[in-house]
Amino acid sequence: MKETKGERRLFASKEFTPRFSEVDSMSIVWHGSYPLYFEDAREEFGKKYGIGYLDIFGNGYYAPLVDIAFQYKKPIIYGMQCRVDIYYRPTAAAKIIFEYEIRDIKDNSLCTTGHSVQVFMDKNYQLMWMNPEFYENWKKEWKVTE
Amino acid sequence: MKETKGERRLFASKEFTPRFSEVDSMSIVWHGSYPLYFEDAREEFGKKYGIGYLDIFGNGYYAPLVDIAFQYKKPIIYGMQCRVDIYYRPTAAAKIIFEYEIRDIKDNSLCTTGHSVQVFMDKNYQLMWMNPEFYENWKKEWKVTE
Amino acid sequence: MKETKGERRLFASKEFTPRFSEVDSMSIVWHGSYPLYFEDAREEFGKKYGIGYLDIFGNGYYAPLVDIAFQYKKPIIYGMQCRVDIYYRPTAAAKIIFEYEIRDIKDNSLCTTGHSVQVFMDKNYQLMWMNPEFYENWKKEWKVTE
Amino acid sequence: MKETKGERRLFASKEFTPRFSEVDSMSIVWHGSYPLYFEDAREEFGKKYGIGYLDIFGNGYYAPLVDIAFQYKKPIIYGMQCRVDIYYRPTAAAKIIFEYEIRDIKDNSLCTTGHSVQVFMDKNYQLMWMNPEFYENWKKEWKVTE
Repeated sequence: MKETKGERRLFASKEFTPRFSEVDSMSIVWHGSYPLYFEDAREEFGKKYGIGYLDIFGNGYYAPLVDIAFQYKKPIIYGMQCRVDIYYRPTAAAKIIFEYEIRDIKDNSLCTTGHSVQVFMDKNYQLMWMNPEFYENWKKEWKVTE
Repeated sequence: MKETKGERRLFASKEFTPRFSEVDSMSIVWHGSYPLYFEDAREEFGKKYGIGYLDIFGNGYYAPLVDIAFQYKKPIIYGMQCRVDIYYRPTAAAKIIFEYEIRDIKDNSLCTTGHSVQVFMDKNYQLMWMNPEFYENWKKEWKVTE
Repeated sequence: MKETKGERRLFASKEFTPRFSEVDSMSIVWHGSYPLYFEDAREEFGKKYGIGYLDIFGNGYYAPLVDIAFQYKKPIIYGMQCRVDIYYRPTAAAKIIFEYEIRDIKDNSLCTTGHSVQVFMDKNYQLMWMNPEFYENWKKEWKVTE
Repeated sequence: MKETKGERRLFASKEFTPRFSEVDSMSIVWHGSYPLYFEDAREEFGKKYGIGYLDIFGNGYYAPLVDIAFQYKKPIIYGMQCRVDIYYRPTAAAKIIFEYEIRDIKDNSLCTTGHSVQVFMDKNYQLMWMNPEFYENWKKEWKVTE
């Protein structure tokens, strides 16, 4: 994760060990588990900064994922101790963007990178073209500037 | 599945092939996938007899699983062609009970057996102690007698 | 969990919060997630007592689940803090039997009960009718008597 | 899917209906299910063109996903009839690249787009920098030119 000068980055981390049921017949974690690890990271971030699913719901919105990508750098093997790091990437758009890194705790080597983009919908499934007020307030509170 | 004399049995069947992501490092389907196969069978049954999740929802109810069990007879291996059979088991209780069998299509041998029990809840999460009217009507329509 | 007089019980516990992706459209954890929570409990037990999947593999065996059942007592809701407790149930058979309880940490109320049965297979997929030697040694080490 | 003039495209299609367990509390399919739908599409493609997981294994290789991305265009709702289309994208690199589209069968509207990249590993987990011979033969057989 490249740090830009003067940038204040919001982030969270969560340690995990892959489940036996998450590995395939080569004992490697199946790529379809990465969205789960990313989700765990978002929940950790949400708890830390008060912007979890229930906070968003409580304000009358829903924030579906509209774009997700991940790149596999090194296999995650059953028995490894891992850590997923999540970074908030500021944007002027009415979106929530996160970047992710999964690392092998033993040597801090990078296993997976990725990102996700969420938009806001109201409870009638209408897409929001501008940030909801509660989210603008949250950005001010955390001094997030894009 | 033991057939009782004179009993009219409602049932449905669905063919499937296990997904690569459903097998473990021994190339055997992970047992945690069985609830998915059973769910697919219930949906097939629901479509055939007009008693699917959306039918139940449309009548104001929700039918959570409260009891599920499965027994493994023979491993399901990646590449096998399988079939899940679902049988409706009549009961006087305010419950929906199904029995399941998963078979290897090649020789009809039995891989898995199981059952599930569902109850009715209304949309305020209140458990129903008697069958909802729509379900009583459904039982009459299909001449289900316990 | 009924304690039998004089019985020495091996057990482990793991705290968890359900994932957003594990709840259904009623905000209740889908029952198909219970096998995952039980798996997490077995891994915790395996680490605590040296009888995890990799220990079993390392000794040349595989221990597939052949029987699993769970009963739903109270819904697990998104946002709840939960704990899964796992208890080892001694048996003379060539099996590993566990009992499980999932509780709401807030008031210790019981959400789910269940059990699982595992058998031993060697790496040629042959079922073992007697306990492998390493498992007999493990039982002696932990003074497990059935 | 833009058709390039004169290009011969290999593709496959599979119809599906989302499972109840795949929707979230807004009755929308959880994005983490998309990798499963893409996997189903790859299996369909593999069967149609003789390049499935078991074919690759049988030739001594493994083809892990190293890059996957999907974009959400329109929600997939419980009860919808859908179709996933998979297109093979020729490349000179030692990779297998697929593009995906998920459509609502009712009006053929586009719900999701995506792509995946696979590399070849031998059974000692060594990455292949050139295409394995069996894959070069497969490309010739199907007249795939990049």
